[in-house]
Amino acid sequence: MLSIVHAPIMSNAVIDTVTFQSVLDARKRINAFVHRTAVVTSSTLDKLSGTRAFFKCENLQRTGSFKARGAHNAVFSLSEDVIKSGVLTHSSGNHAAALSLAAKCRSVPAYIVMPRGAPRSKIDAVERLGGIITFCEPTLASREAVAEQIRLNTGATLIHSYNDSRVIAGQGTAALEFLEDYPRLDVLIAPVGGGGLLSGSAVASRGVSPNISILGAEPLGASDAYQSMAKGELTPSVNPQTIADGLKASLGTLAYKILRENHVEIVTVSEEAIVSAMKLVFEILKQVIEPSSAVGVAALLDPASNLKGKQVGVILCGGNLDLERLPWITLK
Amino acid sequence: MLSIVHAPIMSNAVIDTVTFQSVLDARKRINAFVHRTAVVTSSTLDKLSGTRAFFKCENLQRTGSFKARGAHNAVFSLSEDVIKSGVLTHSSGNHAAALSLAAKCRSVPAYIVMPRGAPRSKIDAVERLGGIITFCEPTLASREAVAEQIRLNTGATLIHSYNDSRVIAGQGTAALEFLEDYPRLDVLIAPVGGGGLLSGSAVASRGVSPNISILGAEPLGASDAYQSMAKGELTPSVNPQTIADGLKASLGTLAYKILRENHVEIVTVSEEAIVSAMKLVFEILKQVIEPSSAVGVAALLDPASNLKGKQVGVILCGGNLDLERLPWITLK
Repeated sequence: MLSIVHAPIMSNAVIDTVTFQSVLDARKRINAFVHRTAVVTSSTLDKLSGTRAFFKCENLQRTGSFKARGAHNAVFSLSEDVIKSGVLTHSSGNHAAALSLAAKCRSVPAYIVMPRGAPRSKIDAVERLGGIITFCEPTLASREAVAEQIRLNTGATLIHSYNDSRVIAGQGTAALEFLEDYPRLDVLIAPVGGGGLLSGSAVASRGVSPNISILGAEPLGASDAYQSMAKGELTPSVNPQTIADGLKASLGTLAYKILRENHVEIVTVSEEAIVSAMKLVFEILKQVIEPSSAVGVAALLDPASNLKGKQVGVILCGGNLDLERLPWITLK
Repeated sequence: MLSIVHAPIMSNAVIDTVTFQSVLDARKRINAFVHRTAVVTSSTLDKLSGTRAFFKCENLQRTGSFKARGAHNAVFSLSEDVIKSGVLTHSSGNHAAALSLAAKCRSVPAYIVMPRGAPRSKIDAVERLGGIITFCEPTLASREAVAEQIRLNTGATLIHSYNDSRVIAGQGTAALEFLEDYPRLDVLIAPVGGGGLLSGSAVASRGVSPNISILGAEPLGASDAYQSMAKGELTPSVNPQTIADGLKASLGTLAYKILRENHVEIVTVSEEAIVSAMKLVFEILKQVIEPSSAVGVAALLDPASNLKGKQVGVILCGGNLDLERLPWITLK
């Protein structure tokens, strides 16, 4: 459908590195603007997984996903002089809403480039938060051309949704909170698409718990991170197919570097496992999550992940989805 | 369908009274066995309702509803001598699962009488918690006869799902926690079916905040509490019709007395308002709730409730529902 979501890295992305200190700095910067999200547990899910599992509810984060963390860190990192021209991104997903909110908090415009035909709920979310939408054709070329034109016209700063060290440091604050609350976790699981959340989590959790295992959970139908790590070479997605639309993006260069440095392992899960984990979370944790969140839960429940007897933290990354089309109903 | 749910009061129900002290005692008794549930808020729902609203998530309570509170208080009120023969109820709903768990915590049997044709999910929940199910015909006569036979055979103590002072005192602990966390609430909203939650909430919140307004929220299609309070005479439901299946029960005598003593007001909401509120809670609060929980939210959103500018607490009473049949999908 929207094959543009697995876009290669923006040429003008900010690419350097992310340190534990930058995650600590991010937390100070965004503390007043994002929620310290709840962690929930369930004896039923413990039994099913054979673990002691903890779920960090980023579905309850502002704008309904962890993306609020990175967007606020990026926006509040910019100087008065730079930020006054606003910020810009091309995204049809959670980053667009997150950036709109962050810009609103600094009273500057957020320019959002979205493909024509983006879901109505995503458009509404951005508009509710005051984002200024420009529609483009659903091709990478159109998306980048329209964004560049807006940048030239407005002077707005482009904030890439994941290949940006400020964004990654911000995303790392979820794992930071998680490990402060549960310092004895043996394993941390986060889903991986572009890799912003997973790489930020890796830096943050290594900083707190040097020996923790970090597991990236990826749909089998969009397993470029798995392949990249296995080959030792960044291998972009080709035509990814998964219900977890938030994870179709190809792993970013910065995230790839961080995942390798931190010995992050990637596990892949099937579409059936994702849908079944998603329904379990609705039924048992009573949390509304989007399919991307269920990817981490599916990894937790997969015996191949070898987690028996361990204390495992799972980041439920978001809760934005079309409630008219729940996959266990529509897939029938 | 299951018209037996609006059963009149059991002849052997425990009918006396409920004091604030009995709610405080209940809390001590059940503290180790139930969750102190989270409270969530949303600026979007504040805008929609014109209030500052707080939602207490009893959908996150053990067994997925507030019923765990009353069941544990009743079960842990019984002496060793009495409890050893087990407990008994007839319920096809949340009370059955709650009583099964409470009995399991005291290592005694829970005998559950359920009508043939009860939803598979409800049967599974009770079985998972070790409840011993006996099926009856879906008539009040069969239900009472089967329960009485089990009582005679086993010596188990019958714990009615709402017309029991121990149960009501237990249910009151949700409001107690709520007002401890948010002492400045002007109004507390709880849904009303049999009245266990609402009457317990009334006693608890009057004890903490003498001037608080207590609002019972009831489906228009099952508005016996509204009619009873208006007429000043207990008026049982006749053929109640509502999607909020947990609220079809007729108001109990004990709850009726408590609601009158505490000047509780009842507001009624339409089926459309219930479904729309339910979807909003999924979308915005990211909480899975059952239709009964949405009745309180619908009351919050109804301009007729006159809540503008107030601090309002809403108890989301439970989150058990058939996820294959969400009303905004199936009602189309």
